[in-house]
Amino acid sequence: MKRARDSRWTMTATREVTYEVVTTSDIFDPDNPELGLLPGGRMGGGTRLVVIDEAVERVFGNKIRRYFNLNNIAVEYMTLCGGEENKTIDAVLKVASKLSEIGTDRVGTPPIAIGGGVLQDIVGMTASLYRRGIPYVRVPTTLLGQIDGSVSAKNGVNYEGCRNRLGTFAPPPKTLIDRALLATLPERQIRSGLGEALKVALIKDARLFELLETHGSELVRYRLQDSDARSGDSQPSLEVIQRSITGMAEGLTKNLWESELKRIVDYGHTFSPIVEMRALPKLHHGEAVAMGCLFSAVLAANRGLLNPEQLIRIINTTAGIGLPLTHPLFADADVMKEALADTMRHRDNNQHITFLADIGKTVFVEDVVDAEIERASAFMAHLLQPHVPDDAALTKLLSEPGATTGYDASQLAHRAV
Amino acid sequence: MKRARDSRWTMTATREVTYEVVTTSDIFDPDNPELGLLPGGRMGGGTRLVVIDEAVERVFGNKIRRYFNLNNIAVEYMTLCGGEENKTIDAVLKVASKLSEIGTDRVGTPPIAIGGGVLQDIVGMTASLYRRGIPYVRVPTTLLGQIDGSVSAKNGVNYEGCRNRLGTFAPPPKTLIDRALLATLPERQIRSGLGEALKVALIKDARLFELLETHGSELVRYRLQDSDARSGDSQPSLEVIQRSITGMAEGLTKNLWESELKRIVDYGHTFSPIVEMRALPKLHHGEAVAMGCLFSAVLAANRGLLNPEQLIRIINTTAGIGLPLTHPLFADADVMKEALADTMRHRDNNQHITFLADIGKTVFVEDVVDAEIERASAFMAHLLQPHVPDDAALTKLLSEPGATTGYDASQLAHRAV
Repeated sequence: MKRARDSRWTMTATREVTYEVVTTSDIFDPDNPELGLLPGGRMGGGTRLVVIDEAVERVFGNKIRRYFNLNNIAVEYMTLCGGEENKTIDAVLKVASKLSEIGTDRVGTPPIAIGGGVLQDIVGMTASLYRRGIPYVRVPTTLLGQIDGSVSAKNGVNYEGCRNRLGTFAPPPKTLIDRALLATLPERQIRSGLGEALKVALIKDARLFELLETHGSELVRYRLQDSDARSGDSQPSLEVIQRSITGMAEGLTKNLWESELKRIVDYGHTFSPIVEMRALPKLHHGEAVAMGCLFSAVLAANRGLLNPEQLIRIINTTAGIGLPLTHPLFADADVMKEALADTMRHRDNNQHITFLADIGKTVFVEDVVDAEIERASAFMAHLLQPHVPDDAALTKLLSEPGATTGYDASQLAHRAV
Repeated sequence: MKRARDSRWTMTATREVTYEVVTTSDIFDPDNPELGLLPGGRMGGGTRLVVIDEAVERVFGNKIRRYFNLNNIAVEYMTLCGGEENKTIDAVLKVASKLSEIGTDRVGTPPIAIGGGVLQDIVGMTASLYRRGIPYVRVPTTLLGQIDGSVSAKNGVNYEGCRNRLGTFAPPPKTLIDRALLATLPERQIRSGLGEALKVALIKDARLFELLETHGSELVRYRLQDSDARSGDSQPSLEVIQRSITGMAEGLTKNLWESELKRIVDYGHTFSPIVEMRALPKLHHGEAVAMGCLFSAVLAANRGLLNPEQLIRIINTTAGIGLPLTHPLFADADVMKEALADTMRHRDNNQHITFLADIGKTVFVEDVVDAEIERASAFMAHLLQPHVPDDAALTKLLSEPGATTGYDASQLAHRAV
């Protein structure tokens, strides 16, 4: 068929995004200007929305109000409930309505989000949509939010039963971190946050792993506060937070919009999302991720990539932090196969699974087969008992032949890329 | 107060976005591969969602189905209604549910959006949120969509009574333009589309203006089809479409994410959004924009920036296309003042109003005062009569002193920047 000559316009545009994570102390002290300043440092006019997590409101609500009152900064408040079940598009629209109501403009009145990961996701997604994107200020109040969410560009809500099915990449220009906010958190939240620190340690920072291995239970007990002094000269709390943020920051900025779907920082996130969505009672994010890290480490050990002794160190460190090692859904190979299929749909039908070759060292694999998943799930089932098996028992479990599942690990190991 | 030394992480990431607008002919001919190819040119596997405007479905539904059937491309269909009142977050969620249902993945099964601006906004916003952003293919079926939306990165839905209050910047990698799709459109839609072409002409392309001035009514009558031959050697339809796209593309790519809030391509869009939201019966987008262009031109003429003869050419060209010149809301100075205040909230409290210094030449002004708006609204009121005043009458109207509103235009003119 003869066609008219076609015209073609190719549009290319480049966007540079810069954002900052800054530590501060006494963040709600009226003499500390950080919280009130606009990103970039100028003082704003106009009313700003302050969105506060309900749990944070109970502990710090009066201090926060006093801060803005004494500094004569016009604000309106709204509170949101944490919890994965509240990470909905309805919550996003509720915040959007409030921004519209108070007349938030495009640049000069950035909202302030004070709370955990769910609140940050909701406010972050709203800010990215409102007027097609406005700046905001992030004040994470959980360990997970401080070391993981703080450097992340992602937000999202759950939809149609799928975790973060809707969302955007839109980092706020400024994130403020005050470690003192962690002092009143439940221990379980600290443990969950250390789950992501463990992930960073495993993929790239052997020193961070040693800190978690040596100080895990103490970090939880003192909630990463200055009682670190008890550990002698070193300050493991400070170092754990700084190394975790640095590790995440390095891993993210090269690939902020995930145009590259092979992401080392996704370690532990291949098999965990389905568990996180389905487990009842609910798991915390860091708990599911720690289990996902362990599951992948077991896969790697079974392939002969990861030394079993290193796997045992990982198990003991996870247990030392007080994180649960496994869950019946990880012990169910069918669920794990479904988890992989789901995740692959998010990775252009590639597995792109990060395997550990050592603590702090990774490779990607693309050829995990069902039999390997079955063997790893069988191992996870052994960890379901209330007490962690001792090293000798773990060694014995790991040396059990994979013969029952009929695959030859030695054949697969060299194919890791 | 003594503070611990603060740590600071500065993250910088760069994103390059490339997208294409390609003209094609016989787009629904099964022998034309364009529609079925993935962006980048490969053939895909997996089921893709095809979202079709209800009005397009009636005319081209069978052809579209035949295209995918004969090419053995697995697709699912859904239809959406056009009309600004359907540009809602609910429509976005409906499309998102469908994508989830058919298992659309992150890269390999991009949806195809066939329809006008409202449909493109809805599908574009959904695609930008689903899995935090997937590619899609845009097939605009209106003139406005082909010359304006086609190069735009913006999508959005109306919310809380505000136009495009929620949305993102996320251009699809591929937009296909087939001029033949315009052949069955109502004349009013063609006129509305030419309203945006007129905008491009006024801000940067005197030759495009001449084409619209000379061929306006004919372009509408023949709906930009090849019956252009009637105009002799030249092909004004083709040239109008190409110049409009080129003009928009140049204006957009330097500032795709609107980090710079002074945007020449916003010409005509300062005062029109409020009218577009409030006018009953509803105005089409291009109609409101053409009125906004005219209103700003009147402001510029009253300031002595734009020659009154050029303003009269603009009025006659607008009328020649068959676009309405004004609306009671433009004749209401209070509404216009409110419109400016609203728009300024979107521009960090700056006016950033594009004024014409000539046809094809602009300046920004930041100091429009109420008296000028009142005088321009008074002029727009004169145009409410069913027949356009002749040139002599327009000249007389324009030479009427602004004394009644008590400001001195000669003082303001030189302050244009």
